[in-house]
Amino acid sequence: MSQEPEYSDGDLRNTGMRLKHDREWDYELETIVEAIEERDATKVGLQFPEGLKRRGPAVADDLRELADDDVTFMLSGQPCYGACDLDTYLMKRTDVFVHFGHSPMKDTDKVIYVPLFSNVDVEPIMEESLDTLNPPETDPDVGLVTTAQHMNLFDEMRTFLEDRGYTVHVRRGDERLTHEGQVLGCNYASADVDAEQILYVGGGKFHPLGLAMEHPDKLVVIADPVNNVVTVADTEKFLKQRYGAVHRAMDAQKWGVIFCTKIGQGRWETAQEIIADNDDAYLITMDEVTPDRLRNFDMDAFVNTGCPRITTDDGPQFHKPMLTPGEYEIAIGNKPLSELSFDTFHGTW
Amino acid sequence: MSQEPEYSDGDLRNTGMRLKHDREWDYELETIVEAIEERDATKVGLQFPEGLKRRGPAVADDLRELADDDVTFMLSGQPCYGACDLDTYLMKRTDVFVHFGHSPMKDTDKVIYVPLFSNVDVEPIMEESLDTLNPPETDPDVGLVTTAQHMNLFDEMRTFLEDRGYTVHVRRGDERLTHEGQVLGCNYASADVDAEQILYVGGGKFHPLGLAMEHPDKLVVIADPVNNVVTVADTEKFLKQRYGAVHRAMDAQKWGVIFCTKIGQGRWETAQEIIADNDDAYLITMDEVTPDRLRNFDMDAFVNTGCPRITTDDGPQFHKPMLTPGEYEIAIGNKPLSELSFDTFHGTW
Repeated sequence: MSQEPEYSDGDLRNTGMRLKHDREWDYELETIVEAIEERDATKVGLQFPEGLKRRGPAVADDLRELADDDVTFMLSGQPCYGACDLDTYLMKRTDVFVHFGHSPMKDTDKVIYVPLFSNVDVEPIMEESLDTLNPPETDPDVGLVTTAQHMNLFDEMRTFLEDRGYTVHVRRGDERLTHEGQVLGCNYASADVDAEQILYVGGGKFHPLGLAMEHPDKLVVIADPVNNVVTVADTEKFLKQRYGAVHRAMDAQKWGVIFCTKIGQGRWETAQEIIADNDDAYLITMDEVTPDRLRNFDMDAFVNTGCPRITTDDGPQFHKPMLTPGEYEIAIGNKPLSELSFDTFHGTW
Repeated sequence: MSQEPEYSDGDLRNTGMRLKHDREWDYELETIVEAIEERDATKVGLQFPEGLKRRGPAVADDLRELADDDVTFMLSGQPCYGACDLDTYLMKRTDVFVHFGHSPMKDTDKVIYVPLFSNVDVEPIMEESLDTLNPPETDPDVGLVTTAQHMNLFDEMRTFLEDRGYTVHVRRGDERLTHEGQVLGCNYASADVDAEQILYVGGGKFHPLGLAMEHPDKLVVIADPVNNVVTVADTEKFLKQRYGAVHRAMDAQKWGVIFCTKIGQGRWETAQEIIADNDDAYLITMDEVTPDRLRNFDMDAFVNTGCPRITTDDGPQFHKPMLTPGEYEIAIGNKPLSELSFDTFHGTW
C-alpha cells in the first residue's frame, strides 16, 4: 500500500533525483510572473519531473503570492522523465506553461523552460575522478559530458581538466540537445568525440549507462557530485539482459509494435515500416508504456519505437520480451546478433 | 514479473470481463468496413476495454482482410474502463475510430460505437433470482437494470418478471446513459424508481455495488449470468473503508485536488470551487489517476473530482486518503458525517 516500490538499478525512476540531497534551486519565479502579467494569464500550468513533483506545492504557493488572485495554478500529474515528456494537454489549456528541470528539446514560445541548475560543487568529485581516468601523460584526450542540471558549470569542468593537462573534446550533439556537452537518456551524440575516455559529471547512473551502451569501446568514468562517488560505467548486466530479451523474442509469432504518442517520443515511420513488412505485427498506440497496459494484449513480444530507456532499463518488468527497433531486426533474422547496439533517439518534435 | 496482479473485490479491473467465459461477440465488421470505404480512410483506430484488448489483433486481422491494403489499423493501448475513457488522441488522428464494448455517452459522428452484446442466456439465472427477490405477492414492485452488454435482452428480462407477477419499474436515467434501464459504474439514475428492490442482471459485482451505495435503502439483487450466481449486493466493506478514509483525511493540511483530463471524467467547476475556498489545496491535472502518479506529490490527502470508482474502489491502494468531493466536504467539517453518500457523475462530454 504505502510501501515504497522497489527500483532496479536501471529503473528510469532511479535517477538519483530521489535522493534527499540538500539542494537549492532557482525556480525563476520572476520570469514566470512576468509572463503571467504580459499575457494577462488566468491559467498557469506547472510541470515537474518525477523527483521534483513534491516541490510543486511550494512553488505554486510562492507564485500565488506574487500573482493576482484570479490566476489558477495547475500542477501536472502526468509522469515526466524528460523534455520529451511535455504535458501537451496542460500546455494547450493554459496561458502560461512552465516545464521545470529540463532544457528545451525545441525552441517554442508555448513553453517556459526552467532548467533548475544544481548548486552542487563539482570540483571535489572531479579531483577524485583523476585517479580513475587514464592520466594525461599517456592518454591526454578526454570527452566531457554532463546533464542539463550541471550545464551552468560546464566551462568550469572543462577548465579543470585542461588545467590538469587534458585535451578536452566536446560537441553539441544534434538538434535534440540544447547545449554543448549535454547528454539525454536517449541521445549521446555529444560523446561522439575523438577520445577513448569520457568523463561524465552528474548524478546517478542512468545517463552514463546509456552513454556506455551507445559507446561500448570507450571508458566511461562517472564523477557523481550528488552521491559523491566515482565509478566506471559497467554495461555487462544490461547487455546480458538485452541479449536474453532478443533470444526469447526469436520464437515470437505475434508482435505488438508500440507507437508512443508523447510529443517527443514518436517514431511513426519506424513503426509503420515494421507493420508493413510483418503480417503478424500489430500497431499499438499509447502514451505511457507500462507493464500493466501491455499485459492485456495477447502478444508474444513487443517492439517499442518510443523511449529506448523503457525498453533497455525497464524491459525485465514486462510480461513478454520488449525490443528496440534494432533488436527486433535481429530477432526476426534480418540482422546478425553482432549488430546489437543501443537505440538512440534523434530530432525534436 | 509475468505474475498476475492481485485484484481486490472492488478493483476496477475486476469487472468479470476477465473471466474465461466462452462468449461470441458481433464486432460489426461490415459497419466498420463501410465507414472505411465511405471516408476513403487510411488510418483506422480500434479501442477495446481492458478485458477485451486481447481480442484486438484478431479483429484487426479480420478487418485487414476486408479492407484495402493501404489501410493502417491501430489498437489503442490506453487503459479503457468505460465510454468516458475515449482515446481522444487516436480519435483525432484516425479517419475512422471504433470504440468497442460501451454504448455512446454522447451522440457523435467521430466515433463508431460497437456495443458487443453478450450471447449469454439470462433466463436461467433470473429464474434462480426469484428465490432471493421479495415475492410479487408481498412486494410486487421491482426495478430492473442491466449494463450495455445485456441491453439487447432488456425487453426479455422485463417480460420475464412481468410474467411472474411483478410490476417492473424502469427509467432511462439521464443524458449520460444511452438506454432505458442501463447503469454505468458512476451513474445509477436508472434505478431511481418507485421500488424497494432492484434486480441487476449482468456480470460481476462492480455495477451492483455502486448501485447499492447510491441507493442504500434498496435491496439490490444480483443475477449474474456470466458467473452463474445470484447474490445480494453488500456494501458494508465499502462503506467502512470510506468512513475510514474520511476520518484519516480529517487531519490533512495539504490537499491535492485531482482534475481528470479524460474527456468523460472532468468536473472542472467542482475542482475550481475546492481550490478557491482552500488555500492549502492544490490543483493536479492528470488522465490516469494511479497510486504511482500521486506518490511523488507531498500531500496529506487527495480529493478526486474524476471517476468516483477510482476513489471508492481503488482508494486503499493510494498512499494517502483519497476522497470524493462530497466526502471532502465532510472531512473539512462543512457537512456532517451522516451525509456521506456515493459520488455519481452526470452529463456527457
